[in-house]
Amino acid sequence: MSIYIKNVLLDEKTTNILIHGNKIAGIGIDIEQPTGANVIDGQGKAAFPTFANSHGHAAMSLFRGFGDDHNLGDWLNQWIWPNERNLDPEIIYWGVRLACLEMIKSGTTAFADMYFFLPDAAKAVEESGIRAILSHSFVDLHNPDMAKSVRKEVEGMESIICDWNSSHERTKLSIAPHAIYTVSNETLKFFAEFCTRHNLIYHIHMSETLTEVENSLKENGCRPYELMERLGILEQTGSRFIGAHSLHLSPEEIGLIGKYHCNVAHNPNSNLKLASGHQFFYNELRDAGVNVALGTDGCSSSNNLDMIEAAKVMSLLQKGWRQDPLSMPAPETLKVATRNGFTAMGIDAGELSEGHLADLMLVDLNNIAFVPNNNSTSNLIYAAHGDCVDTVICNGNIVMQGRKVAEEENVIREAQRVVKKLITVRPA
Amino acid sequence: MSIYIKNVLLDEKTTNILIHGNKIAGIGIDIEQPTGANVIDGQGKAAFPTFANSHGHAAMSLFRGFGDDHNLGDWLNQWIWPNERNLDPEIIYWGVRLACLEMIKSGTTAFADMYFFLPDAAKAVEESGIRAILSHSFVDLHNPDMAKSVRKEVEGMESIICDWNSSHERTKLSIAPHAIYTVSNETLKFFAEFCTRHNLIYHIHMSETLTEVENSLKENGCRPYELMERLGILEQTGSRFIGAHSLHLSPEEIGLIGKYHCNVAHNPNSNLKLASGHQFFYNELRDAGVNVALGTDGCSSSNNLDMIEAAKVMSLLQKGWRQDPLSMPAPETLKVATRNGFTAMGIDAGELSEGHLADLMLVDLNNIAFVPNNNSTSNLIYAAHGDCVDTVICNGNIVMQGRKVAEEENVIREAQRVVKKLITVRPA
Repeated sequence: MSIYIKNVLLDEKTTNILIHGNKIAGIGIDIEQPTGANVIDGQGKAAFPTFANSHGHAAMSLFRGFGDDHNLGDWLNQWIWPNERNLDPEIIYWGVRLACLEMIKSGTTAFADMYFFLPDAAKAVEESGIRAILSHSFVDLHNPDMAKSVRKEVEGMESIICDWNSSHERTKLSIAPHAIYTVSNETLKFFAEFCTRHNLIYHIHMSETLTEVENSLKENGCRPYELMERLGILEQTGSRFIGAHSLHLSPEEIGLIGKYHCNVAHNPNSNLKLASGHQFFYNELRDAGVNVALGTDGCSSSNNLDMIEAAKVMSLLQKGWRQDPLSMPAPETLKVATRNGFTAMGIDAGELSEGHLADLMLVDLNNIAFVPNNNSTSNLIYAAHGDCVDTVICNGNIVMQGRKVAEEENVIREAQRVVKKLITVRPA
Repeated sequence: MSIYIKNVLLDEKTTNILIHGNKIAGIGIDIEQPTGANVIDGQGKAAFPTFANSHGHAAMSLFRGFGDDHNLGDWLNQWIWPNERNLDPEIIYWGVRLACLEMIKSGTTAFADMYFFLPDAAKAVEESGIRAILSHSFVDLHNPDMAKSVRKEVEGMESIICDWNSSHERTKLSIAPHAIYTVSNETLKFFAEFCTRHNLIYHIHMSETLTEVENSLKENGCRPYELMERLGILEQTGSRFIGAHSLHLSPEEIGLIGKYHCNVAHNPNSNLKLASGHQFFYNELRDAGVNVALGTDGCSSSNNLDMIEAAKVMSLLQKGWRQDPLSMPAPETLKVATRNGFTAMGIDAGELSEGHLADLMLVDLNNIAFVPNNNSTSNLIYAAHGDCVDTVICNGNIVMQGRKVAEEENVIREAQRVVKKLITVRPA
């Protein structure tokens, strides 16, 4: 099956894009329309790669706006944990469908996730038509008995993970240690060995708060990334490592992340909203050769999955705290939000040129953010929001056209239904 | 003419809203539908006050995305100024229509503006159906000859301004000194007297950059707001004073702004993007009794007019730089973006209760930012963007319903046409 996108704006020039199967087969004004192709009229539209959301907790979309503006302890103890006990496969399934719908509607076709009930979550992503790496998140609270049961649980998941991964192209399963302060060194290492044996992404919250760093210095005598190196994990996992947040870093740690070619998933909105910090070392990481990707984090902390908004905040925040209006210009911001995210997930997309996977979107140039269209990349990053996206293609398949997504009304209705099963405790 | 909004969510409860003429006549589940009223079905919608955008340059929408990611000097000298010479009444008219369209589509019904060609700008606002205070911006570059011609020009505008203001309800004209570094003390005082004589808003850029403050200390021996007090302007203009930006303030200046009941227009996106600063003293100003309002600034610096985005960034930035996740909760953020902006402009709107002006909007609860709707204010501020707004009412008139605005396609087409007359110089 071929898709032929005719007369579309790309890099400020009108061109045609041809997709064969799941790949971009050619781009150029001379590329002709093949017989039998599905033709999309690109007039009044601009093509961009889709976004890759490099860190989140998709099913937590159901907690959107629940318990905002409380301190972390109250939020977890009184709002989230008592209700997370209600989680079941059906709630997860519709929560992930809701998240996928929101991502598609704002131009995202891949995400790296950490949560629970992997098979149900993966089914929801498969049926939504986009890509994800879904990692089951574990803690052992540095308790040897818990560590033993985590190990047993992971061993029980081994064949499920391997079977799924060998039979699915767009969705991959993995396991994720939550963070160094909730997972013992032995379990961190066990996970690294497991992920390396099966060639899986090792996704972990790293250096999100100053407290985490201070406690590591106290307990381990070194900073979080130094601990990960000491445990051999950075070397072992390398480019399969995604360190979510990575906000409070020393120059030495930045050097380590670069040395082992690890990935960092930056979540500017979440970091601001939870007051984790606002001075993310983008330039320093980039200059150390680190692949920095962008994430939204879960909807209970950020509170949407719109990568365009996240990209704007990321760029503006760099300019702001560095006092440099030339920091992170629009094209570089776009690359971080697209290509770098796919790279972190080991997916060859995020770049519109021949041979790459066909993950792309068309934005509506009559959306007011593109009026006038003096510079389409600038308009996308600095003026637009997700609603400018008209058409989304993932892996060569159209998942949204004219802003219509299959089963949209049903997904919204079911999400509204299951949230009543999920949230049974509402503090005054 | 009456409007009856039936079964709408307001403060998380279902109610009815009755509008008579240009005012809210009643709110309550017991309020019955009057005969002949225009009935709006509020089911699946939530009502909020509309936004008041307290600082901007509306016609600069036509420069959206033009010359981004350059330093200020290059941007002004090579990109903006050579093209601003092309400005004419037609360009201004369609530029302001475009800005009004964008504001209506994201729930804004009033804005305080600084630019040129007042009558054409005012005509565009009148025809768009919303409110504005449009101030002609002047500089004299501390040059006595220029000061003389500014004074002459202002005197020539006196009858135009007075005639317009006495015959128009929604739009008011005024004059604005650009800033203390571009306007001499004599002209600053002359403007204050003029504005006071005619009961006009005195809108000025204040303390936007550290350089401005440092230069004032050098040249005036005091900080910008201290200069304005010394000149008697704060006392004279009082609650008619809007100090746009007001970013770099001493505790003493914050005290002065509070003492004279002046207004501050905070523009978080512009301040970040231009790297003017990110630590706005919201709490300190509020606690000093200052009416702090929110603005987007012009599209050439921020680059959209979406007050929902601006409100989110304002709130998140406070939490971020103060390292306090409890700073600026959603309801307070909403008040700053709505009620406080109207107050700064001397308009009794921004509050949904009986007797206030009927400026309000209905948001679509099936917009994904409101799914699920655990807390509608939280969803509006932290999850939504302008596209959630379904219906906008200004001064008792419907200006958008079902996201349809009168003449929308025409405004977009004409804006796209006149931008070609405006932008004739495009640096490589």
